[in-house]
Amino acid sequence: MQKIEHIGIAVKSLEASNPLFEALLGVPCYKEEEVSSEGVKTSFFKNGPNKIELLEATRPDSPIAKFIEKKGEGIHHIAFDVADIEAEMKRLTAAGFILLNEQPKRGADNKLVVFLHPKSTNGVLIELCQDAGES
Amino acid sequence: MQKIEHIGIAVKSLEASNPLFEALLGVPCYKEEEVSSEGVKTSFFKNGPNKIELLEATRPDSPIAKFIEKKGEGIHHIAFDVADIEAEMKRLTAAGFILLNEQPKRGADNKLVVFLHPKSTNGVLIELCQDAGES
Repeated sequence: MQKIEHIGIAVKSLEASNPLFEALLGVPCYKEEEVSSEGVKTSFFKNGPNKIELLEATRPDSPIAKFIEKKGEGIHHIAFDVADIEAEMKRLTAAGFILLNEQPKRGADNKLVVFLHPKSTNGVLIELCQDAGES
Repeated sequence: MQKIEHIGIAVKSLEASNPLFEALLGVPCYKEEEVSSEGVKTSFFKNGPNKIELLEATRPDSPIAKFIEKKGEGIHHIAFDVADIEAEMKRLTAAGFILLNEQPKRGADNKLVVFLHPKSTNGVLIELCQDAGES
């Protein structure tokens, strides 16, 4: 838990929201990337040591489509940067937190990621992410 | 917009949630503070260059009580650190964002703060905050 790596924000349309976040943050989007296993298209903005990730659903059963249907556009998750994701997974499981995936999976922006169940974290969807390296 | 200063998380009880976030982040709460004008009690946790702020309502008409009633516990706002809050307010107003307060007001943790209307920011409640100095 070294810092907030990024905040994930669910939006209906990257095309509509990218200019809004460019204006807000005063920087251009530096990357767009689709994660087809999650049914999302993402765009990224740098903000000092942190990032903002916008997420648009690419199909109706995407977690982002369901989130927007239920709660509307808005903050979807907090991702924390970790140096050793497997060690953090062990530490947090031992402390009573519930992991949503048993093994780290490949996320956007060259990361290995795991999510914690919001029921164990006061309703907050938390992602741990570790740089996946050059492989 | 220098970095994410903190993420604000609405909780029913600091007493219940402080130990949870201590376990999650691996650090103790470093401060509790009441902001009576906002009807909230807050607690703060450091995470590298960023912070997590937990918010508990102190009265039924508090914005946090209303938020939890409507959406349940969860992420309430993102606060960005700014060097010159008045300049950022001018820049963002000119760019079409709507401010929720016309003048910076005193927030928790020795900050001057202003909020942007979520209708102008994809449903995300955004706070700008500047260190209030030693006054």
